[in-house]
Amino acid sequence: MRIRVVNPNTTESMTALIEANARAVTGPGVTLDAVTSTMGPASIESHYDEALAVPGLLAAITAGERDGADGYVVACFGDPGLDAARELTDAPVIGIAEAAMHAATLVGRGFSVVTTLARTRGRAWDLAARYTPAGACRGVHACDIPVLALENDPTVRRRVVDLARRALATDGSDVIVLGCAGMAGLCAAATAELGVPVIDGVAAATVLVQALLTLKVGTSGHGEYAPPPPKPYIGLLEVFNRTK
Amino acid sequence: MRIRVVNPNTTESMTALIEANARAVTGPGVTLDAVTSTMGPASIESHYDEALAVPGLLAAITAGERDGADGYVVACFGDPGLDAARELTDAPVIGIAEAAMHAATLVGRGFSVVTTLARTRGRAWDLAARYTPAGACRGVHACDIPVLALENDPTVRRRVVDLARRALATDGSDVIVLGCAGMAGLCAAATAELGVPVIDGVAAATVLVQALLTLKVGTSGHGEYAPPPPKPYIGLLEVFNRTK
Amino acid sequence: MRIRVVNPNTTESMTALIEANARAVTGPGVTLDAVTSTMGPASIESHYDEALAVPGLLAAITAGERDGADGYVVACFGDPGLDAARELTDAPVIGIAEAAMHAATLVGRGFSVVTTLARTRGRAWDLAARYTPAGACRGVHACDIPVLALENDPTVRRRVVDLARRALATDGSDVIVLGCAGMAGLCAAATAELGVPVIDGVAAATVLVQALLTLKVGTSGHGEYAPPPPKPYIGLLEVFNRTK
Amino acid sequence: MRIRVVNPNTTESMTALIEANARAVTGPGVTLDAVTSTMGPASIESHYDEALAVPGLLAAITAGERDGADGYVVACFGDPGLDAARELTDAPVIGIAEAAMHAATLVGRGFSVVTTLARTRGRAWDLAARYTPAGACRGVHACDIPVLALENDPTVRRRVVDLARRALATDGSDVIVLGCAGMAGLCAAATAELGVPVIDGVAAATVLVQALLTLKVGTSGHGEYAPPPPKPYIGLLEVFNRTK
Amino acid sequence: MRIRVVNPNTTESMTALIEANARAVTGPGVTLDAVTSTMGPASIESHYDEALAVPGLLAAITAGERDGADGYVVACFGDPGLDAARELTDAPVIGIAEAAMHAATLVGRGFSVVTTLARTRGRAWDLAARYTPAGACRGVHACDIPVLALENDPTVRRRVVDLARRALATDGSDVIVLGCAGMAGLCAAATAELGVPVIDGVAAATVLVQALLTLKVGTSGHGEYAPPPPKPYIGLLEVFNRTK
Amino acid sequence: MRIRVVNPNTTESMTALIEANARAVTGPGVTLDAVTSTMGPASIESHYDEALAVPGLLAAITAGERDGADGYVVACFGDPGLDAARELTDAPVIGIAEAAMHAATLVGRGFSVVTTLARTRGRAWDLAARYTPAGACRGVHACDIPVLALENDPTVRRRVVDLARRALATDGSDVIVLGCAGMAGLCAAATAELGVPVIDGVAAATVLVQALLTLKVGTSGHGEYAPPPPKPYIGLLEVFNRTK
Repeated sequence: MRIRVVNPNTTESMTALIEANARAVTGPGVTLDAVTSTMGPASIESHYDEALAVPGLLAAITAGERDGADGYVVACFGDPGLDAARELTDAPVIGIAEAAMHAATLVGRGFSVVTTLARTRGRAWDLAARYTPAGACRGVHACDIPVLALENDPTVRRRVVDLARRALATDGSDVIVLGCAGMAGLCAAATAELGVPVIDGVAAATVLVQALLTLKVGTSGHGEYAPPPPKPYIGLLEVFNRTK
Repeated sequence: MRIRVVNPNTTESMTALIEANARAVTGPGVTLDAVTSTMGPASIESHYDEALAVPGLLAAITAGERDGADGYVVACFGDPGLDAARELTDAPVIGIAEAAMHAATLVGRGFSVVTTLARTRGRAWDLAARYTPAGACRGVHACDIPVLALENDPTVRRRVVDLARRALATDGSDVIVLGCAGMAGLCAAATAELGVPVIDGVAAATVLVQALLTLKVGTSGHGEYAPPPPKPYIGLLEVFNRTK
Repeated sequence: MRIRVVNPNTTESMTALIEANARAVTGPGVTLDAVTSTMGPASIESHYDEALAVPGLLAAITAGERDGADGYVVACFGDPGLDAARELTDAPVIGIAEAAMHAATLVGRGFSVVTTLARTRGRAWDLAARYTPAGACRGVHACDIPVLALENDPTVRRRVVDLARRALATDGSDVIVLGCAGMAGLCAAATAELGVPVIDGVAAATVLVQALLTLKVGTSGHGEYAPPPPKPYIGLLEVFNRTK
Repeated sequence: MRIRVVNPNTTESMTALIEANARAVTGPGVTLDAVTSTMGPASIESHYDEALAVPGLLAAITAGERDGADGYVVACFGDPGLDAARELTDAPVIGIAEAAMHAATLVGRGFSVVTTLARTRGRAWDLAARYTPAGACRGVHACDIPVLALENDPTVRRRVVDLARRALATDGSDVIVLGCAGMAGLCAAATAELGVPVIDGVAAATVLVQALLTLKVGTSGHGEYAPPPPKPYIGLLEVFNRTK
Repeated sequence: MRIRVVNPNTTESMTALIEANARAVTGPGVTLDAVTSTMGPASIESHYDEALAVPGLLAAITAGERDGADGYVVACFGDPGLDAARELTDAPVIGIAEAAMHAATLVGRGFSVVTTLARTRGRAWDLAARYTPAGACRGVHACDIPVLALENDPTVRRRVVDLARRALATDGSDVIVLGCAGMAGLCAAATAELGVPVIDGVAAATVLVQALLTLKVGTSGHGEYAPPPPKPYIGLLEVFNRTK
Repeated sequence: MRIRVVNPNTTESMTALIEANARAVTGPGVTLDAVTSTMGPASIESHYDEALAVPGLLAAITAGERDGADGYVVACFGDPGLDAARELTDAPVIGIAEAAMHAATLVGRGFSVVTTLARTRGRAWDLAARYTPAGACRGVHACDIPVLALENDPTVRRRVVDLARRALATDGSDVIVLGCAGMAGLCAAATAELGVPVIDGVAAATVLVQALLTLKVGTSGHGEYAPPPPKPYIGLLEVFNRTK
């Protein structure tokens, strides 16, 4: 099985981090490659960034279909473009917020999300409402570290762990969800310090895609996720024209 | 006050129809212009189309800000890119599904949506969940006429009205929402035939933007809709780079 | 177009305030008159007051129908008698809580209500549940100033603004809704001080009624809001008998 | 213990029916009297009727307080004025829709309401949303017999039972709630014919008031249901002035 | 009428307390007996305890049916085995959390639960979601006293009352629900100290069973609560085999 | 990794079927064993059966802990005893309804459940409400074939597939969930015939447990799922006493 992990932002170093974390949970017989979006924002920290990360994601899915990918991970915690991506393929396509929230509800009664900038909390709540029943997500907390600073700031681990510890107490939660692909590297240390399951969405999505492929279950093409009707595309986005 | 109506698809004839319907409800002292997206799909009938209509919409909002627009209508019933658009401006930005659903709940107890292709019903339900309390939207019904066929097919009015009549009975609803900007021209005739309020989102959004401007109330820039943090954009979408 | 604004309490000075705020947002060609209820409580601060404000409201609507009014504003934040009023007319009838909450959701992600007495918070929550999806109303806060003291107490503005500022922080909201018709005069100053949209329901309802009238959309008479079946009324309320 | 059953419409013959059904479930040591509202509509079949039944109900509660009543039943399925009534007393006040829906959820998994006119279904759904968790009320069905015709029409039992039987099948429900005080007399026969619990709200409310009185639990006066602040009342409703 | 109160834990002294509190609200002509489960945990403080209290409860219901009981109270706040018990009988079966929460919503706008161990709060929330509409239960608070210590610890009353007082303020609630059968003895004192209704589920369930019996309404045998299909049972639980 | 699949009913032949379906999706390096409950009902078709299947399940989990199991599948679609089981172990414990519903929401927009007896539909709806957001489960349909007849009845496949096809059309769903462990063998054929993803919970739970183990994420022991407090157990269930 061939799994393609798409980093929807355009920062290569973040793709490398994502790939390492995905590869760590890749089983035998699985080929995994990670690709960086070729167009759009260097990081995704606003609705504007997220909307403009979607074309690059869709291009990566279309390329993946050509290359014979069997499943996809969308490696940004805002899960950009998931519905559109699912129209392009019968393969499973899993977002990392989706994966992390599903995993969290399988091992605890309520989770807290620890994310980057405060302005992204609304998106996390929207996704929780989409993926989980009311009450499962008990809080979304921002450490106010920009996405690209996660890599280099030596205080990140301490600040994220401290924030998570307060979230567990305040929210009465029993699982932590890391709210950014760039936090993937903190997962093991945070688990050890906090004594509760800490879920990194990159790894979670990677194992879920493998799980679905093992089940031989892919995205339903019946109804809403059928291939989009072909039609003219013009201007800058002419390349997204689909003839079939 | 200057209102800009953005048609997020790239079909000029549809913009003309939209403009006519918006202009019909424009008050004295209001300047209205309608613009067609310069990039993306000719019509929006899938999540793929909708995602790829967003860059053109955002470009139109950015241009509108340069041109001194005071308010915006997003004239596609999927309300593409609304959150992102709101980050770009302090002016009100109203989607036509949003406007139609709000108006519907002000004049009745429950509405039915009559839309184009069956595959878009899920999006209409998602928007109803976002804008209205549970129970307000009582049904979403598709006439299975493609968006661009609405203009030329002489049977459209009959089929839409018949579908709406069945929806009122089946759903126990008392208001009809037209689920596509391309249906705007049917509004008066459908109202006359059905004897219930029939809401066209283009007109509804146009009057709501005027209402908000009269109130001197625009999009909140506090928190989630603050201007997006600037950062590098690359590739095809490099033009979306914002320096401020 | 003729819009009648009904103050459902019996305090004339409050009607004058309401009228001034409604008139400030009235467009050209609109005739607006404000009437004071002729029966019932001097202010509405309990379920008892609210229930007993409804007959006066309904009498005002019936009089408005005789006088040829085209639309109605119900100018008390408890939105008393809205369903009953809608049965009496095909014109739009908008409550000020309804209008303010709708407007708030069009310009932000979540609003806080700042109201008068603590005992009215439950009603505000009930109305938020009726008008808006879960999560839109993020808090209801009482300044504990009685309705009729709003006019004369020089500390009102300061207390309301301070409470609103705390509400924005506590609730993570980005819009303020003023929870009493008697606060209408504070709107501009509070907007300036807080830097977020502050919505006064009187003005909001007035512009929404105009918006609906421009759309030529009135209350649906199909089903629940059809005219009430005529029948004998006796005793003190005999005057509410309707022969048609 | 003294229980007062208030018929909020002004039809004496209906009060007699209500009283008989309440008395049938009155325990030893309980004094029960039934009173007819002295003002307002002969029957309650619209929001207008319901709103104008409330003053008579509140007058009856106030009289009950003078007379030393220990608990109240509000005997109309629309549960008019419940919140306002509760402000006037520390005694329990139970509506018949409230009682019937509570009882129904104690003995089955989901109930169907069988009511009179189609236009009242919306009110029944609103009450179900107020009293029961989502999913408990599985359908509201109208037999389209006016309230006051229930007494005299010999086909009523057959039509109500047939409608209830279809409701059980359509809704997948296991309990029937009779949606009008005027249907109280049908309860035993319908139970026998249908083989499922059939709940009459008049009897249900009467036993629930007794249950609460036995518990020595009355309406909470802490917060929202504290006595309403006294203030001037004028005009036709001047008699509702409260000095305390 | 014969009511059987089942203590699903195996501690006789707790049964005695429960019986005393049930008997205090038993009307004339009612025979009440309280039985202790003959198998399982000494107290119920975990999901494990609760699951293993169910067989003893079901055995007690089956014995009750042989003995001619007319109604049942399940006297543990976790309401163990309610659905299963209802399949075994046409008599009403009421859990004490169910009864307390229903009673609480009849006399106030929102209740707080005061319970024993923090780990049981999730169960209380689950039950609130099952029995009451969203918003009725406003908080669940643990005093962290083990169930069997309630009897002997002289500080219990003070700690529970203090916790309840804080809950009323924090939650904005107006009724207290005692979250353990072992707290039944505190009800009168807590009511007196707090000045709000304090509901003990044991008494509440006892009066509700009597209320339903007076209504001649029992558990619906139509559909989900029909008698379970007979089949072989083996091993330790062979005695639960049912031939009918 | 060692995964233990527990069949909570006592029918060995059904365990063999379950084991075969679990083994088909077991990866390299995974040891899987399937055990049959040693006490309780031969099949689970009522709340009574389900409640009495829980002790056997808990005994199997306790045995699994002694034997060093790393993860558990609970192979009955009612997901009996999941909360209690999770208190006994830090390993992941996944129910097959839980797994199937999670998988279904990852590959489609809405699923229909096809189950055995009509009386079990309520349980399926309860589980859907627990695991998935509102709207994900669009229908639960019963083929009215008893659990143990699934193995031998040659018409089963046809009836289940036909029912599923009707469910897709009626519910507007795009995924089918098989609502009984005994239907696991139908999965491949149903997928081929229906052209949509068909999810068997046994396989789904098996891959999800492997996924969680690969993530090194187990059940949270923080809070509600901490080990149950030890205490005396008596009678038939004395063996469930835990000393730690």
